Amino acid sequence: MPVLNDEVPDEGDYDANRRRGEFDHITPEDFIRGSGHGNPPGWLDSGEITRIRRETPMPYVVVVPVRVDDFGRISKVGSLLCVSEDGSVERTLIAGRVLYHESVREAIARNISKDLGDIALPTLPQSLQPFTVAEFFPTPGISPFYDPRQHAIALCYVVPIPGDCKPQDETLDVEWCDAQGEQLTECIDQMANGYGEIVRRALAWAGA
Amino acid sequence: MPVLNDEVPDEGDYDANRRRGEFDHITPEDFIRGSGHGNPPGWLDSGEITRIRRETPMPYVVVVPVRVDDFGRISKVGSLLCVSEDGSVERTLIAGRVLYHESVREAIARNISKDLGDIALPTLPQSLQPFTVAEFFPTPGISPFYDPRQHAIALCYVVPIPGDCKPQDETLDVEWCDAQGEQLTECIDQMANGYGEIVRRALAWAGA
Amino acid sequence: MPVLNDEVPDEGDYDANRRRGEFDHITPEDFIRGSGHGNPPGWLDSGEITRIRRETPMPYVVVVPVRVDDFGRISKVGSLLCVSEDGSVERTLIAGRVLYHESVREAIARNISKDLGDIALPTLPQSLQPFTVAEFFPTPGISPFYDPRQHAIALCYVVPIPGDCKPQDETLDVEWCDAQGEQLTECIDQMANGYGEIVRRALAWAGA
Amino acid sequence: MPVLNDEVPDEGDYDANRRRGEFDHITPEDFIRGSGHGNPPGWLDSGEITRIRRETPMPYVVVVPVRVDDFGRISKVGSLLCVSEDGSVERTLIAGRVLYHESVREAIARNISKDLGDIALPTLPQSLQPFTVAEFFPTPGISPFYDPRQHAIALCYVVPIPGDCKPQDETLDVEWCDAQGEQLTECIDQMANGYGEIVRRALAWAGA
Repeated sequence: MPVLNDEVPDEGDYDANRRRGEFDHITPEDFIRGSGHGNPPGWLDSGEITRIRRETPMPYVVVVPVRVDDFGRISKVGSLLCVSEDGSVERTLIAGRVLYHESVREAIARNISKDLGDIALPTLPQSLQPFTVAEFFPTPGISPFYDPRQHAIALCYVVPIPGDCKPQDETLDVEWCDAQGEQLTECIDQMANGYGEIVRRALAWAGA
Repeated sequence: MPVLNDEVPDEGDYDANRRRGEFDHITPEDFIRGSGHGNPPGWLDSGEITRIRRETPMPYVVVVPVRVDDFGRISKVGSLLCVSEDGSVERTLIAGRVLYHESVREAIARNISKDLGDIALPTLPQSLQPFTVAEFFPTPGISPFYDPRQHAIALCYVVPIPGDCKPQDETLDVEWCDAQGEQLTECIDQMANGYGEIVRRALAWAGA
Repeated sequence: MPVLNDEVPDEGDYDANRRRGEFDHITPEDFIRGSGHGNPPGWLDSGEITRIRRETPMPYVVVVPVRVDDFGRISKVGSLLCVSEDGSVERTLIAGRVLYHESVREAIARNISKDLGDIALPTLPQSLQPFTVAEFFPTPGISPFYDPRQHAIALCYVVPIPGDCKPQDETLDVEWCDAQGEQLTECIDQMANGYGEIVRRALAWAGA
Repeated sequence: MPVLNDEVPDEGDYDANRRRGEFDHITPEDFIRGSGHGNPPGWLDSGEITRIRRETPMPYVVVVPVRVDDFGRISKVGSLLCVSEDGSVERTLIAGRVLYHESVREAIARNISKDLGDIALPTLPQSLQPFTVAEFFPTPGISPFYDPRQHAIALCYVVPIPGDCKPQDETLDVEWCDAQGEQLTECIDQMANGYGEIVRRALAWAGA
């Protein structure tokens, strides 16, 4: 089934050379929510993405989903359980590239919706100033962040999720760890490729 | 009527030397929402505050109330119409000092509640990293910010207000200006003592 | 003359598929400073860049060069006078894409060096948290930022320049405007494509 | 010996009710550098400070001194060895209150100078946006930060120190730990009252 999802793009998807006008005949929901209604125009096919990923850094967004109390303090930190390419289950965060002609805010909303479903009701940030910039290199060890597919430059945001989560696509489940407990340390340690470091920086920024 | 309000403190109010435990017999609502149930313990009287204000900088919070759209973008900026000490009406923001033993988050929540009422449902920030620090001096011209009563160091936050506003105490009304329109420039120009500059910095930070 | 410069890449330049090791036989200066010693390996040719620019957002850095006083306050704001593609002179900031396998810090240093020369002695930021993220779209009017060539996502930094500037390549000159004066407003108004807005946000962030 | 130092104020010192003009007859160095030339006017005496510290939160600055490389990356983190009130040696950071009528930038410069001497040549931040706000309460356990004397609200900054350090007053020595090594963890663990947590947040913010 075609999905708006940069991890498993379908043949024939493309976003090369598209103009804004090409989105005129689809509803915003097709674009932003992006599930189950077929592909929007302007989606790069799998081969193209792979090629570009070896040629230029890819702009990414990474979202640390959290539950907050009435005072805005982080009470729980979310992480995703996903099926990785080799079939094993891995713990990670919400992450995805910014599409051509897509705003960073749209990319945040789309990727949250893709992983958590349409009723997560995220509280998007008022400013695009990220709490950190994570540089994923295709070579391990250059930075704390590693992505074998590409050089990705990720703007990282903490996003409160007050609604219900309905994991979908490759996301099997969302787990919420208490921000104060020891379970969180375990959870962070289970994240590969530097995602745990992003959670650590998020907590330091939030003062949690 | 006694209120938890640093602008019109009642005789006998104090917060010197109080310990956390002194709040044990009042409900959190007395402390945070602070209206109509009598004074909590630990409130400084008017003379004491005046004296301290001439001796040490006062830690303050300033809140720019905003309405945001589904993508977190600021759509409207709020400002307060208040009666000033000389009886004229002035346009300003939500501002107040941090009380002894009060957290910055509690101060933000209390001051919003004091000006906008109990059902404003503010979305408090996840991080205490302010978008700017405004230094109000009792001498005009040293900085863009001026407060004849004191030297105040204000941590400034943008806070989305999704709920209803019921202005109270000295606050006569809350006005919402479109973030894109020319009305906002007028609104900013009407603010005295540097509050307009705080709104300008908030909009620059938010990319609005 | 071959230069390490993404505006006028030479035929045969490439950076596709390169690995870190390919830089082993050149000195860091070739890579970072990048002038006069021929091209480093791994540079994309002009046609490739043009193609990628129509397919995916390009990660960029934008630098607002400033002079600061002993207290870190911005005293002067720099802007570049450059020859644009149509031969006219335009006022702009230091901006350039992040290369494949290059860190954001290296991109900042390289682009400053490219425009201001090797003895500008920039004070690079301690954190990669940018003061703003500017989204340049190839369609005018979607955001305050416009780039006809591409969709660029620019991390924006204020960088003090205590050293001497020796403008080179397309940069004709660097002009320094007093941060407090009216000249700065003129200077900002002369910048096209949203660069003036970046300066405004930089000044708001810096409290200048 | 009289020093401009809020830890050991001399009798007769005061800063109550002072106006800017009262500094007219002393040189900026007296005020900012503050060592060896007698007390400037406007300094609160010891009893007054103690009293105010029990009545209102005190605005503070905390500085994490660092050494940085050419790319702005933190290479070493500094910490102070000081004699505490009970005579033992403790490891801490540069910290001090903001004086009445003093700007936050002046407070940062003065406190660095007080602890590290006049030739430390600190690179003060361009923006007053702190990387974190540390709330020190006089009751342990309310936050990670504890100060038995007072409720202090500390704006925290990372400040590169390229010059030489000449520790003075209560500061016995400055130690520099490699930002990457295990020694840093030890160093952080030796800091009491939450200062280690401030260093952790500084490193997270800086991506170190």
